[in-house]
Amino acid sequence: MNKLLDAFKQTTFQVNGHGPRKIQVLKEAFENLDGQLESEMYGKGKLIEDFQEKMAFVLGKEAAVFFPSGTMAQQIAMRIWCDEKGLKKVAYHPLCHLEVHEEDGLRELHQIESVLLADKTRVIEFEDVAGMKEDAACVLLELPQREIGGQLPDYQTLEAISAYCKEKGIMLHLDGARLFEILPYYEKTAAEICSLFDSVYISFYKGIGGIAGAVLAGDSDFIEKSKIWKRRHGGDLISLYPYYLSADYYFEKRIGKMKQYYEHAKELAGFYNQCYGVTTKPEVPVSNMFHVHFDAPKEEMEQVLTEICVESGIGLSGHIREVTETNSYFEVSVGDLYEILPREKLMDAFKLLDEKMRTKFL
Amino acid sequence: MNKLLDAFKQTTFQVNGHGPRKIQVLKEAFENLDGQLESEMYGKGKLIEDFQEKMAFVLGKEAAVFFPSGTMAQQIAMRIWCDEKGLKKVAYHPLCHLEVHEEDGLRELHQIESVLLADKTRVIEFEDVAGMKEDAACVLLELPQREIGGQLPDYQTLEAISAYCKEKGIMLHLDGARLFEILPYYEKTAAEICSLFDSVYISFYKGIGGIAGAVLAGDSDFIEKSKIWKRRHGGDLISLYPYYLSADYYFEKRIGKMKQYYEHAKELAGFYNQCYGVTTKPEVPVSNMFHVHFDAPKEEMEQVLTEICVESGIGLSGHIREVTETNSYFEVSVGDLYEILPREKLMDAFKLLDEKMRTKFL
Repeated sequence: MNKLLDAFKQTTFQVNGHGPRKIQVLKEAFENLDGQLESEMYGKGKLIEDFQEKMAFVLGKEAAVFFPSGTMAQQIAMRIWCDEKGLKKVAYHPLCHLEVHEEDGLRELHQIESVLLADKTRVIEFEDVAGMKEDAACVLLELPQREIGGQLPDYQTLEAISAYCKEKGIMLHLDGARLFEILPYYEKTAAEICSLFDSVYISFYKGIGGIAGAVLAGDSDFIEKSKIWKRRHGGDLISLYPYYLSADYYFEKRIGKMKQYYEHAKELAGFYNQCYGVTTKPEVPVSNMFHVHFDAPKEEMEQVLTEICVESGIGLSGHIREVTETNSYFEVSVGDLYEILPREKLMDAFKLLDEKMRTKFL
Repeated sequence: MNKLLDAFKQTTFQVNGHGPRKIQVLKEAFENLDGQLESEMYGKGKLIEDFQEKMAFVLGKEAAVFFPSGTMAQQIAMRIWCDEKGLKKVAYHPLCHLEVHEEDGLRELHQIESVLLADKTRVIEFEDVAGMKEDAACVLLELPQREIGGQLPDYQTLEAISAYCKEKGIMLHLDGARLFEILPYYEKTAAEICSLFDSVYISFYKGIGGIAGAVLAGDSDFIEKSKIWKRRHGGDLISLYPYYLSADYYFEKRIGKMKQYYEHAKELAGFYNQCYGVTTKPEVPVSNMFHVHFDAPKEEMEQVLTEICVESGIGLSGHIREVTETNSYFEVSVGDLYEILPREKLMDAFKLLDEKMRTKFL
C-alpha cells in the first residue's frame, strides 16, 4: 500500500504533532467528565453555552457559536457579510481553504465569487488589499497562511489592512484555524489580534489537538444570523458535545504550550536546514508549523524517509507530496510528541537524512 | 422557568424514550472500545467504511455514507436528483422536515422549490402523487409521517407510488428517520422497504438512541456525488467517529427491540384513550410513536401533567404544545424506559390523569 506511511507508523518516536488520531483522544477527554451532565439540544443548553461564552471572551468578541467544521463556519461568515453588503464577492489568498479544499462550496451553495489576492508564493500584503481591482464584501486573511508553510505578514500590515477595510466599508474576516499557534510570534493575545477583524473562525483540531469542530465569533447580530445558516447547512446537530467538550479539554491542556511548540519548531527547522538539499519554508518558523522542501523527486524522498524510519526508529513524516518533478515537500506541525523525543535519537535521524541526501543527490 | 419540565425531570419513572440525553450515552458506547482504534480521516478509514458497508447491506443498497445530520443528507439527496433531472423541484408532505425544520435550507442553499402533496392532516396517498399538478424531479416520502403522530400509508400504496414514479422517471426518496421503528408493523425488512426507493436516509438518534448522525444510501454513483456535496456543506469532518461508533453500538443494542417498542406503544396508547378528553393519533400506533391530544388548552394541561409528576412520581411528558386555544398535544416515543416501569405505578398515573381531566373539563 503506502510503504512510507506503514514504516512511519512502526517507528518508536514520531517528530510531529500530538500523536496518532486514535479514539483514545475522545476517551481521555471524557474520562473525568461526569456522565450525568446533560447534552445540549440543538445548540441550547448550559454546556455548549458556557463553552461558547468562554471562547467569545478568549477572542474578545460579543458572541461565539460552535460549529462542526470550519468549512461550514467560514462559508456562512462569507454569506452573511455578502448579504449585508449586497455583493456576492469575497477576496482571499489563492491557497485559501475555501478556494482549494471545499469542492467549491462557496460558489455551489452560496453563489459567491472570489477575488484572489497576492500570488501562491507569498502572504497578502497591504498593497494587495488597497490595490484590489474589484469590489468585495469581505476580505479573508488566513493567519498563518498554511499552504505556504504557515507564513505571516508583519503585525503592522494587519493593522493597516484592518484600518483600510474599516475606512472602505469592507468586512474583514480572520481564518484563525491556527490562531493560538501564532500568538507567541506576534506577542499578542488572541483578543488583540481579533480586534482587527469583524469575524473570526478558530479550529480545535490543529494545535489544540481536539477531535473536530470550530468556533465562529463576532458581534451578537452576526452570530445570531450564523445560527440560522448553521441549521440550513445541516450543522445544528441535536448534540455536538463529543466535539466541544473535547475541544475544551484539549484547549485547557495545550493553550499554555503554544510558546513551547513555537520554540521547538524553530529548533527543528534549524536541523532540517543543516541537511543537504533540504530547506524549510519559512526558513525560521513563525508558529508551530513549517514546510520541509527537498531538492529531490517525491518517489526518491519516499525511499529516503522510509529508510530513516527503519534505520533510526524515528519518523520524520509519514507523507510526502510532489511540488514539481524534481521537488517535493512535507508539512510539519510541532506538538506534544517533540518534547519526549530522545535528543540523541533525533540527531541520529538528521545525520542519516544528511548522509542519504548527499549520497543520492550531491 | 418551565414548571412541567422541572417536575418531569424529578420523577422517579419516565414513560417515554430511552432516558435523558446525558453524556453517559457517549461514555457507555465507548467504554468497551479499544482506545488504540484509529480515527478515519475525512471519510476514509476502516472504521467508517466498515460501518457504511454494514448499513448499505442492512438497507439493501449498493453504497452508504455517514452524515453528521439528516438535514444535510436529505438536502443533498434532493440536490443530486434535481441536478440529474435538470429540474429544481421536489414533492413532499407539507409537514416534511425540509419544509418545517430547516430554515428553508433547500431553497436558500440549493434553490430547490417544493411541491406539497396531501394536506397537513393525513399521509400522502397514491392519488396525491399521480395527481401532481407540477413536475418534480423527486418525491420524498417520510415513513412514518412524524408530525401527524407517525402515521403510515398501506404497504400497497408504497408499492403503487414506487411503480408510478419508476414509470414516470421521478426519483423516489425515503425519509427513513424512523425506518426501523415501522418494520414490525409492515412485517418487512429494511431492505425490502428500501427496494421501493432510489435513495434512503436513516437516523441514529430516534429509536436507535445514538448521539446524532445519519446514513444516506443508494447506488454507488449517487453516493459518490453525495460525498462531494458533504464536503461542500461542511459535513466532511476529519473525524465523525464519536457519532458512527455510538450509532453502531446502539444499533446493535436496540435493533432487536423495535417489535417490543411497537407493542408497548399500542398498549400505552390504549391507556391514554381510556382517559376522559384524551385521544391518540393514530388511535392504534403503527410504530413506537404517537401523539397524545387533549381537549384542553396547553396551560391547563401543563398544570395537570405537573401535578401527575408530583403526585405519582411518573412523568408522562415534559413538554406540551398548543394545537388551538382549546387543544394541546405531546409526542410519545416508546423506548427502553417503558419496560422498567412498575405497572401499578403507571396505572396510578393514568387513574390520576382520567380523574383530573374529568374534574377539570367534564
